[in-house]
Amino acid sequence: MKGNIVVGQSGGPTAVINSSVAGVYAAAKKLGVNKVYGMVHGIEGFLKDKLTDLDDYLQDDIGIELLKRTPSAFLGSCRFKMPKIEGHEDVYEKVFEVMEKHDIQYLFYAGGNDSMDTVKMLSDYAAEHGKSQKFMGVPKTIDNDLPITDHCPGYGSSAKYIATSLKEIIRDNASFGAEKPTICIVEIMGRHAGWLTAAAALAKGPDCEGVDAIYLPERTFDVDAFMEKVKVLSETRSSVVIAVSEGIAMADGRFVCEINNENAPVDAFGHKQLSGAAATLAQMVAGKFGLKTRAVELSTLQRAGTHIASLTDINEAYQVGYDAVVAADQGKTGEMIILKRDNDEPYECGTSAYDIHAIANVERHVPDEWIGSDGCSITEGYVKYARPLIMGELVPVYVNGLPRHILCKEVIEYEK
Amino acid sequence: MKGNIVVGQSGGPTAVINSSVAGVYAAAKKLGVNKVYGMVHGIEGFLKDKLTDLDDYLQDDIGIELLKRTPSAFLGSCRFKMPKIEGHEDVYEKVFEVMEKHDIQYLFYAGGNDSMDTVKMLSDYAAEHGKSQKFMGVPKTIDNDLPITDHCPGYGSSAKYIATSLKEIIRDNASFGAEKPTICIVEIMGRHAGWLTAAAALAKGPDCEGVDAIYLPERTFDVDAFMEKVKVLSETRSSVVIAVSEGIAMADGRFVCEINNENAPVDAFGHKQLSGAAATLAQMVAGKFGLKTRAVELSTLQRAGTHIASLTDINEAYQVGYDAVVAADQGKTGEMIILKRDNDEPYECGTSAYDIHAIANVERHVPDEWIGSDGCSITEGYVKYARPLIMGELVPVYVNGLPRHILCKEVIEYEK
Repeated sequence: MKGNIVVGQSGGPTAVINSSVAGVYAAAKKLGVNKVYGMVHGIEGFLKDKLTDLDDYLQDDIGIELLKRTPSAFLGSCRFKMPKIEGHEDVYEKVFEVMEKHDIQYLFYAGGNDSMDTVKMLSDYAAEHGKSQKFMGVPKTIDNDLPITDHCPGYGSSAKYIATSLKEIIRDNASFGAEKPTICIVEIMGRHAGWLTAAAALAKGPDCEGVDAIYLPERTFDVDAFMEKVKVLSETRSSVVIAVSEGIAMADGRFVCEINNENAPVDAFGHKQLSGAAATLAQMVAGKFGLKTRAVELSTLQRAGTHIASLTDINEAYQVGYDAVVAADQGKTGEMIILKRDNDEPYECGTSAYDIHAIANVERHVPDEWIGSDGCSITEGYVKYARPLIMGELVPVYVNGLPRHILCKEVIEYEK
Repeated sequence: MKGNIVVGQSGGPTAVINSSVAGVYAAAKKLGVNKVYGMVHGIEGFLKDKLTDLDDYLQDDIGIELLKRTPSAFLGSCRFKMPKIEGHEDVYEKVFEVMEKHDIQYLFYAGGNDSMDTVKMLSDYAAEHGKSQKFMGVPKTIDNDLPITDHCPGYGSSAKYIATSLKEIIRDNASFGAEKPTICIVEIMGRHAGWLTAAAALAKGPDCEGVDAIYLPERTFDVDAFMEKVKVLSETRSSVVIAVSEGIAMADGRFVCEINNENAPVDAFGHKQLSGAAATLAQMVAGKFGLKTRAVELSTLQRAGTHIASLTDINEAYQVGYDAVVAADQGKTGEMIILKRDNDEPYECGTSAYDIHAIANVERHVPDEWIGSDGCSITEGYVKYARPLIMGELVPVYVNGLPRHILCKEVIEYEK
C-alpha cells in the first residue's frame, strides 16, 4: 500500500466499533503502511486536522486487546453530515487538503446509514474530480438496519446485552409473584427498525419463561389492543414482562413516547430523540388497571455493554475493518464491506465489498415473516438468524474489580 | 442438628441472595440435616404451606454452581410484614404449625431491614411462648443499610454493576465531545441511604474520568446549586455525567422525582415507589440551558446483574448463609450473621452472630466523612471501604450465548 491511511468512527457508538479500528490497524501494518491515523471525532474533527497516530496506542499488542474491550468510539464520534457537493466544494476540498497534508491515500469510515453517506459523497467527489484517494465503508450499527449485508457488526453484542438483561429482569420481576403481578415494560432502542427489540425473543429458553409480548416499530401500535393484551396477561400470569421499541408509533403517526410529550427534541440528522414509550405505557396500565408497573429503559447501556459483548461480533467487527483495508489495497473505493452468511448451523460467514450507493441511506426492516400474526411476537426464523450472532465471549481484563478500557488522549483533550 | 430446616428469601432481590441459600444448604447437609426446605415466596408462601425440597435442585453440585449464578430470589420473595403479636397470635401460630408439620426446627430468613423484623418477631414469639424452634437472620440488601455489619451481601455486586455500567456510560457519553456537551444524569437506587449511588465513585481510574458529581439522599438537594453546578461543568467539560440517588429530596421534604409527579404510588411496606429523579432533572437542564440531556435509570438491573457479580460478594453471601446454620446448631436464635472486617489491604473479613433487636428496622447511612464538603462528591475513605467488595468475578455458564440460570418449579407454578 502506498501512502498513509486514516480511519474514523461516526454515529452512535457500539460495543465493538473499536474492534473494527483494531482490524484496520492490523491489516494496514501487515500491508506495510507507515502511518495509521485516527480521526479525532470523525470527519468533523478531521476537517479541523485533528488526528491521532494509532501507533501510540496499538503498537503494543496489549493495546489491541484493550481496544477490543473498550466500549463506544475510542477515536470519538460525530454526527456531522456532509453537505451536498454543489455549493459546498470547499468542505470537500478541505478533506482532500488534510489527506494530502499527511499523505493519506485511503480513508476508512465506520458507521451506519448516515455515515455510509459520507463515504459515498467523498468517493463520488473523488471520482468527479479525478482524485486518486480511496474511500471504504466499514459497517457498524447496533440497529442492524443496513441493507445488503446479512447483519451489522455491533448488533450481536447489543442483542446479547438485551437478552442477558431481559433474563435478569424476568427473574427479578418474577420474584414477587405472590403479590398481584407486576407489569414490567422494557424499552429497547430502534426508531424505525425493530431488530434490537426482536432480540428480546432470545431470552426464552429452558431456564427462562421469556418475555410475554414484543412490540416492534414495523407494526402500527394499537393502544387499545395493547391494554387488552396486558389485561389478559395479568389475569393468567404471576409476572408479566413486555418489550417495546422506543420507536413504536400509532396509526396517526405519533410515537407512543409523544403521548405525554408532544415536542421531543431533534438531533443534527433531524431525528427525534425518542425516549419514554415504556414509562408512558406503564403509567397508562397503572392508571387503568391499578396494577404495579415498572418501566425499564435499557438506554445507552445496550450499545455500550462491552463487558458482555459477543465474541462472534467482536471478531466480525475486526474482520470488516481488516477486509476494508485489503479491498482498498486491491483498488476498491466507494464500497462497504458486507457480511455474507454461508450457513446457519454451523454458522459460517464471510465478507465481500459492495457498492456504497446501494447501501447509504437505505434502512432495512425486520422481515414480515419474522413477526408473529398477533403483531406482538417473534418467530423461530428470527431466533435461528440471530442466535449465532450472540455466541461467545471475550473475558474483560479486570483491574481493581472493573473492566479495563483504553483511552485516546487526543479525544479526551479535544477542544471545541 | 435435629429435625429439618427451612430457608426463605424476602424483600427486594439481589444478584447474590441465592448464594446464601446455597450456603445454608451446604452447611445443613454437612451437619446431617435430613430435609432442607425452601419457602416459596417467603413467609407469605410459608403461611400457605408452600415449600420446596432443595434436594430436588441442589443435590447435584452443578445445581449449586448454577444457583450462585442465578439472579433474584430463586425461592421467590415477598414483602409480607409480620403483624404485631397482640391480636394476631393466629398468624404466629400458623408459622409454628407449618414448622411442626414438617418437623422444621430451624428457620433462616435472608433479607434486609424489614425482613430482619420478621426474624425478630418470630424469635420473640418463640421465647414468649416457650417454643424451641430457632430463628436466624441472613443479611441481604443491595442498599447496604443494615447496622452493625461492616457491609451487606448483595451490595458489592450492585456496586460492581453500577461502576462497570458507569464506565461504559461515561465512554458512550464522551464519544460526542465534538458537539455541545451532553449532560447525562444517571439514577441509582437507594431511597434514604446513598450507598449505591456512592459506588459511582468507583468508576474513576487511570482509564476513566469518573463521574462529575454525585448526589446522595444524605444531603438536602438544592435545585439551584445543582443547576449552577451543571452550568459550570458544561462550560468546562466536553462530556458531563452525574450520578443521583432516586431518593434525593429537597429542603421541603419532597423527593426530586415528585416535582412533576405529586402522587407516587406506595408499596406494602408504605414506601413510595421512587423513580424519575434523573428524568426530572434532565428535563430541567434541557429547558434552562438548551443542552442535550439524557437520563439513564439503572433500574432493577443493578440488583439483578448476576452476570457481573462480585466473587467476593458471592463468597460472603454463601458464608453468611453457611454460618447462620452453624450458629443455629450451636443454639443461637434471634440473631443475624454480621460481617466483621479485620483488614482493608489485604482485605480480610470474618463473620459473627449478633442480636437481631439491634438490627431490625435500623437504617445505616453513608458516614458524613465520606461525603465531600461540596455535598456532591465522595471521598477516598469510601473508595477504600468499597473497593474490596467488588473484587473478583465468577464467570457465568454460557449456554446458547446467554448466562444459564436455574429455576424453581414451585415458584414458577405458584398459585395465588
